[in-house]
Amino acid sequence: MTTLIKSFGVAVRQSREAYGWSQERLAEYSDLNRSYVGEVERGDAIASLQTIEKLARSLGITPSTLVMRGEVLSQANLVRGLQLAAIAC
Amino acid sequence: MTTLIKSFGVAVRQSREAYGWSQERLAEYSDLNRSYVGEVERGDAIASLQTIEKLARSLGITPSTLVMRGEVLSQANLVRGLQLAAIAC
Repeated sequence: MTTLIKSFGVAVRQSREAYGWSQERLAEYSDLNRSYVGEVERGDAIASLQTIEKLARSLGITPSTLVMRGEVLSQANLVRGLQLAAIAC
Repeated sequence: MTTLIKSFGVAVRQSREAYGWSQERLAEYSDLNRSYVGEVERGDAIASLQTIEKLARSLGITPSTLVMRGEVLSQANLVRGLQLAAIAC
């Protein structure tokens, strides 16, 4: 799995928790399977554009915004890794 | 297929043609199958986040930018449809 796929999952989880929703509720609103939503959140499943669209609509944002949230988290992780590497050097 | 999936395919094609690249070249740069790239461009296949990431990197843009280009095309189509409906009324 790429960093973006993991970070996308975290972005979905954070966006869901911002509403105080359970995975069950997000899955229901998105017309997706609960366990599949869990896999996407953990980065164990790669979401398709259709899944991204369904999740984003439920969360009241555009698909590109949801992907961008994943990118931001991915970049933040990269920066943190570089900072740790710099400290270790 | 949803409107976004079709429009995403058009966005990929337009972004590729802006470089003057063939489908073969984009597929090669993206480490994807040529016929699969064609299917995505026609909206016959639903790209995964991994595919979106591969295509976007080859095209020198972020995955969210590529998805956003699809959204913009999708909205433009919707507006055109509404205008035609208004004319017909």
